[in-house]
Amino acid sequence: MIIIDSPKAMRDWSLQQRAKGNSVGCVPTMGALHDGHLSLVKASVESCDATILTLFVNPAQFAPHEDFDQYPRTFESDCAKCQAAGVDVIYAPKASSMYPEHYATYVEVERLQEGLCGITRPHFFRGVATVVTKLFNATLPDKAFFGLKDGQQFTVIKRMARDLDMGIEVVGLPTVREADGLAMSSRNQYLSVEERTRALCISKALFAAEAAMAQGETNAKTILHAVKTTLAKDVDEIDYVSLVDGNEMTPVTTINGPVMLAVAAQLGNTRLIDNIRFEPNIPASVKPAREGSLSC
Amino acid sequence: MIIIDSPKAMRDWSLQQRAKGNSVGCVPTMGALHDGHLSLVKASVESCDATILTLFVNPAQFAPHEDFDQYPRTFESDCAKCQAAGVDVIYAPKASSMYPEHYATYVEVERLQEGLCGITRPHFFRGVATVVTKLFNATLPDKAFFGLKDGQQFTVIKRMARDLDMGIEVVGLPTVREADGLAMSSRNQYLSVEERTRALCISKALFAAEAAMAQGETNAKTILHAVKTTLAKDVDEIDYVSLVDGNEMTPVTTINGPVMLAVAAQLGNTRLIDNIRFEPNIPASVKPAREGSLSC
Repeated sequence: MIIIDSPKAMRDWSLQQRAKGNSVGCVPTMGALHDGHLSLVKASVESCDATILTLFVNPAQFAPHEDFDQYPRTFESDCAKCQAAGVDVIYAPKASSMYPEHYATYVEVERLQEGLCGITRPHFFRGVATVVTKLFNATLPDKAFFGLKDGQQFTVIKRMARDLDMGIEVVGLPTVREADGLAMSSRNQYLSVEERTRALCISKALFAAEAAMAQGETNAKTILHAVKTTLAKDVDEIDYVSLVDGNEMTPVTTINGPVMLAVAAQLGNTRLIDNIRFEPNIPASVKPAREGSLSC
Repeated sequence: MIIIDSPKAMRDWSLQQRAKGNSVGCVPTMGALHDGHLSLVKASVESCDATILTLFVNPAQFAPHEDFDQYPRTFESDCAKCQAAGVDVIYAPKASSMYPEHYATYVEVERLQEGLCGITRPHFFRGVATVVTKLFNATLPDKAFFGLKDGQQFTVIKRMARDLDMGIEVVGLPTVREADGLAMSSRNQYLSVEERTRALCISKALFAAEAAMAQGETNAKTILHAVKTTLAKDVDEIDYVSLVDGNEMTPVTTINGPVMLAVAAQLGNTRLIDNIRFEPNIPASVKPAREGSLSC
């Protein structure tokens, strides 16, 4: 395994792989790797000849009051995990080279970036889309792997890659959860023991809603009310609970196609997000044609 | 010479060239090729192993009231000129595939896109930056060639390529002019004989200003006043006359580094732009450090 920090060296390495006929997989991360990230690495190693993990805590996606400074940095143990998992290259560029003097260019994915997390974090997805474009331009992958835990992010990046003719297959993999249901996140380590216990209400509320949808509940109001009621008992603040179209990220009132039910909530100083995706079992003959699919 | 219309086929062709060790040059155009474009092709053919000319009239850079529909389309003669000039591939994607349903992604180059042409054409540079990103992602060039006649566009794209780690050398080549000084443009064919004669005042005013700067004039007010006075006699409307920093595109009051003197003016229904770049001869010892250089 090698570590590369310049976009030019990264690009040259990737072009060499492509020239040899090797397919290249990319797993973009901010480090502090957990089993969720490692499931993405595993998928890349299994389906691509070479795997690059990018490791960069991206200042452009944090607002000044957010946790950029506290975000966990565990480079040594991340490297050990990557080595063990079969990563070929860690691409870890420096912030000074990523955003040099007179930096001016941003990628915006309109509409998709505006709702859900985009409401309280208005610059977040533009920061994400921009840095992922830069990482893709350096790593030139055939496939890139993202966790569906960051559900809106996945949808934003998949659309961006299609729109900008990046020629990259953006693959979304299921959220990896702790045994008790909590979605894995690098931010879980901020939680106190007491907050960690209360945080369980998020996945519980989502699973209950999923069960209701599977049993035929299609009314958004009913579903959202139930989730909010469960959350209200245990979280300190609900940022949002939303049921949105799975491709367009716009609120739906009735489920008649793929949807995402998404939650953001505060426990102490920690903001957690989680979601489930659901597609009703509609006979093909009455199903409206849709771009993309849930089988991401 | 071959013609390709899909980003995937274009990308595969370019990757094959790179795999063979061939360097790839790209000349983005909207067709209606004139000697200005052909000077870019010549530079690419001379310095790269393979040359792609992209030919796409980009709806995203025209406002509804602008000349998208009338913009000259001369595909057959463009192909003949490319063939004769040594182009290997014409990449001519279809508008429907470039901007499919639910298209959402745009590239913005902040600050640089805002002044000059960005004032009266607020979506122009975002349309340009977006389409050029798409064309670069499909053609994967080592170098891309642009005319300095579109001076702000060149600066926007050069910054974008650097910021997004595109790994592309963006080369700017001198404006090609008719024998009498008029900057070549596909839009010149809109001019009546009488407008064509009056249009000469633009290059005349710029050349006079250039001579004054070469003789030591550094006061922007003086320079701009002289240009405006010359233009006012012959054009129907002045959109702007601006003296800006050559890298940041911000107005300067005194020349003490590389500048661009730029004009946009209306003759009948036709809007023409032109500019000159100038760098004063400052001893290296007192010259401030600057990103990039004029030797583009």
